[in-house]
Amino acid sequence: MDILLSDLAAALDARLEGKGDIAITGAAEPAAAGPGDLALAMQPAYAEGLRTGRARAAVMWDGADWQSHGLEAALFVPRPRYAMAGITRALDPGAAVAPGIHSAAVIDPTAEIGEGAAIGPLAVIGPRVRIGARAVICPHVSVAEDSVIGDDVLLCAGARIGRRVTLGDRVIVQPGAAIGGDGFSFVTPEKSAVENVRESLGDRQETRNTAWTRIHSLGGVEIGDDVEIGANSTVDSGTIRATRIGRGTKIDNLVQIGHNVQIGEDCLLCGLVGIAGSTRIGNRVVLAGQVGVNDNITIGDDVVAGGASKIFTKVPAGRVILGSPAVEMSTQMEINKGLRRLPRLYRDVAALKKAVQKPGESD
Amino acid sequence: MDILLSDLAAALDARLEGKGDIAITGAAEPAAAGPGDLALAMQPAYAEGLRTGRARAAVMWDGADWQSHGLEAALFVPRPRYAMAGITRALDPGAAVAPGIHSAAVIDPTAEIGEGAAIGPLAVIGPRVRIGARAVICPHVSVAEDSVIGDDVLLCAGARIGRRVTLGDRVIVQPGAAIGGDGFSFVTPEKSAVENVRESLGDRQETRNTAWTRIHSLGGVEIGDDVEIGANSTVDSGTIRATRIGRGTKIDNLVQIGHNVQIGEDCLLCGLVGIAGSTRIGNRVVLAGQVGVNDNITIGDDVVAGGASKIFTKVPAGRVILGSPAVEMSTQMEINKGLRRLPRLYRDVAALKKAVQKPGESD
Amino acid sequence: MDILLSDLAAALDARLEGKGDIAITGAAEPAAAGPGDLALAMQPAYAEGLRTGRARAAVMWDGADWQSHGLEAALFVPRPRYAMAGITRALDPGAAVAPGIHSAAVIDPTAEIGEGAAIGPLAVIGPRVRIGARAVICPHVSVAEDSVIGDDVLLCAGARIGRRVTLGDRVIVQPGAAIGGDGFSFVTPEKSAVENVRESLGDRQETRNTAWTRIHSLGGVEIGDDVEIGANSTVDSGTIRATRIGRGTKIDNLVQIGHNVQIGEDCLLCGLVGIAGSTRIGNRVVLAGQVGVNDNITIGDDVVAGGASKIFTKVPAGRVILGSPAVEMSTQMEINKGLRRLPRLYRDVAALKKAVQKPGESD
Repeated sequence: MDILLSDLAAALDARLEGKGDIAITGAAEPAAAGPGDLALAMQPAYAEGLRTGRARAAVMWDGADWQSHGLEAALFVPRPRYAMAGITRALDPGAAVAPGIHSAAVIDPTAEIGEGAAIGPLAVIGPRVRIGARAVICPHVSVAEDSVIGDDVLLCAGARIGRRVTLGDRVIVQPGAAIGGDGFSFVTPEKSAVENVRESLGDRQETRNTAWTRIHSLGGVEIGDDVEIGANSTVDSGTIRATRIGRGTKIDNLVQIGHNVQIGEDCLLCGLVGIAGSTRIGNRVVLAGQVGVNDNITIGDDVVAGGASKIFTKVPAGRVILGSPAVEMSTQMEINKGLRRLPRLYRDVAALKKAVQKPGESD
Repeated sequence: MDILLSDLAAALDARLEGKGDIAITGAAEPAAAGPGDLALAMQPAYAEGLRTGRARAAVMWDGADWQSHGLEAALFVPRPRYAMAGITRALDPGAAVAPGIHSAAVIDPTAEIGEGAAIGPLAVIGPRVRIGARAVICPHVSVAEDSVIGDDVLLCAGARIGRRVTLGDRVIVQPGAAIGGDGFSFVTPEKSAVENVRESLGDRQETRNTAWTRIHSLGGVEIGDDVEIGANSTVDSGTIRATRIGRGTKIDNLVQIGHNVQIGEDCLLCGLVGIAGSTRIGNRVVLAGQVGVNDNITIGDDVVAGGASKIFTKVPAGRVILGSPAVEMSTQMEINKGLRRLPRLYRDVAALKKAVQKPGESD
Repeated sequence: MDILLSDLAAALDARLEGKGDIAITGAAEPAAAGPGDLALAMQPAYAEGLRTGRARAAVMWDGADWQSHGLEAALFVPRPRYAMAGITRALDPGAAVAPGIHSAAVIDPTAEIGEGAAIGPLAVIGPRVRIGARAVICPHVSVAEDSVIGDDVLLCAGARIGRRVTLGDRVIVQPGAAIGGDGFSFVTPEKSAVENVRESLGDRQETRNTAWTRIHSLGGVEIGDDVEIGANSTVDSGTIRATRIGRGTKIDNLVQIGHNVQIGEDCLLCGLVGIAGSTRIGNRVVLAGQVGVNDNITIGDDVVAGGASKIFTKVPAGRVILGSPAVEMSTQMEINKGLRRLPRLYRDVAALKKAVQKPGESD
């Protein structure tokens, strides 16, 4: 992927100083940059790296004197972290799947393939599937019966799209993610030990589970525009209505979304998060890595949950939470401080008991 | 999938009132139901939905006056949650894989394929594999050498069955699950830092790990009848004897079962559970989401562990546990209450210290 | 896989007593052993098993009188656990993939395949890929453009190797693992709620997240010699430099390694571990199951973290840690003891308050 520095400047809305006709083929940390690389020197700490690297051009910190660093050109951007999006997008050649249908793909005759779509080798497209325009389907992807894939979607290698799944436009599914597997939904003929434990908060009332009978998943999955699903993540089909993920939500690797879950827009769910069945999550919610969310609860808009928080009960909108069970982050910080001082507290209380004990008494 | 309401009633052992000859093509919440859908109105709260939806028939709460809701027929069932199993099973058309062997499947000449089995496109069946009668093998499934798949098994898209794996009858493996990968079993020529830390509970005695040598996995996996394994879950091969999962046990998505683990019958293991190597789990055990279980321990029959419990030591049969480290659920509830009041406890103790301090003393 | 007992003894550097010309075809626990199996009787507890089993030869505990157990031969080894590595390696026939390129594999004409490599059915090898000598590529594996696979590598069924991934020699990738997916890296045009929460430790300052813009992953992944990656684990591509895993490190199933992470040599990462983006992990680090590691922190050499530890901040070299948040293991043990006694502590403090309260006061 080649791009002229002046074109990159325009794409980033960046200020260009120096030569604009340098062909940029990659991006690199300053010390590792070759002559085709744009050096990423957004902080003065990178000055030394510029000296040892071989970049001709760099994105630089505000006010940097690029000429003194031996560069031929420099870009200046208002928010460096945001500029990374534009720079990496410009330099990404995209997946190497040729437009059209590879001869080793298996396409059901009833499937409809959109204009300009690229279907890689050994993909399997099932009955009545509709693939959007310019969608890219990498090797070993399967799309099962009656599913609809939007325009400009990218399905990476080995992604599994089950039946009755709808993906909006520009959705990205990373390798091995499984969307539309059956929900984990089983029932016993009589009330089960689990139902009793949940109702009584711990007392099992002498019940035993008997054999589990399966509730089938007919509801499918609906995923909005601009959603991304991480590698080997799983999103289960709903029972009779769809499991839903709202527009713009981004899901990391190895995340589990249970059946019937409803997730809002513009959320971030980090690696190894688990959301149990039928839970509702608002808009702009952020769940850090390994967060767990109970079934059948509601998480309000704009909630932020710190790493490994375990959420057992409803969380009001706007709350910032942490811990297991998750409480407000400031409360958890107090609890953590208290935990570290716990051995000392026991010593203090023992001393107090001794101090107030009247002569002749014993504990 | 079409079914007459009268046939559905018979399948569910439900009481039918009204017209039995309505063709049912799906199930839906009352408000979303179309004329072919059976509305699921098991509670009076759904009455309003029946008014706005277009269902002709519904499953209704006990004593409901179906005619007043504009319906032509109604079903009444003793345990609504259990009825969901029968309703969804009746309406599930099953995986769209045609009986016989797809021309784009790759079958080793030494494999035996059972009568009525359906092998989808791009499945790979290895040497000496035996596939049971009426088994359904979806696209991109692989079954490695010497494995045996029971009758009426369903292997969903991209399921990975390794060598020396035995699956009982009616087993379901969801998309991307990997059964029979190699166990995580490594050893150092001399005693490793890990072995020392475990023996001393924290003191590493100045040892350092050196390079790890692999213990190969020869034992395979044995899975009983009616087991279900969730999407992208992993079950490792045993070392010299099989890793075993007992009849009727259901495993959710992204669950890790280590090598040599023995799991009993009719258990439920929810999403993101991890069971470390050589642990034994009894019958009817329920592990909620993100539970972790140490290696080489025993969990008794009928144990129920709440969400995100971390089980470090042996658990007796029948125990209901919670927390990290997991303790009895009632104890954990007390601990959680204590944690929330911890800052106040510190203030109380500080005040007590001040109160009992004799004049002239200082802390 | 057949091996003469005398050859096995030589491979293990074991002392052989009795007949060396017995053909060994497997290994088994003594009670389950057939006449071709080597019985693993490394402890006297197995004596009884030897009586009921049918093994002709056994690996025995030090000083065992093998003839009295009806055996024809015995092996004696200095470290039985280490001997398991040699025994299982000798008896492992390896993956059943024939050398050469299967006719149903799809190989890009620009790919280079090393001498003696075995490429199984329905594997896809992309543009400019280089596959090392004697590498074994199982069914349904995909290797994307510009990746380099070392000599003697084993890629198990359905492994996903993305673009710009380099695997050293003798690397093993278990089924379904995804290496080189895109990093979970998103940015908002203005500072996001997450950035504010992190800076303020909880105070969100009224910001709301807006739509997330993607930072593309161009850096790929570099994996050293002798690394093993578990089933369905995920290792994301770096942004502009590679995510790196050092020589000899072993990674279990369902482990998530974020973008830009740097992991040292000879580490062990157990099942369901998650390492967030840009974190650096030293050499010989051991992370037990379900451990979580924050982004952008450093874990020193030789750190050992117990099961389900959640590591939020930098850990110095050599530390043995446990808990959430993780602290030194001995400290956590004290905290856990304190937690179990917490209800009693509250009662003690209540009693103390009563005892020091002057008559007429109330709480």
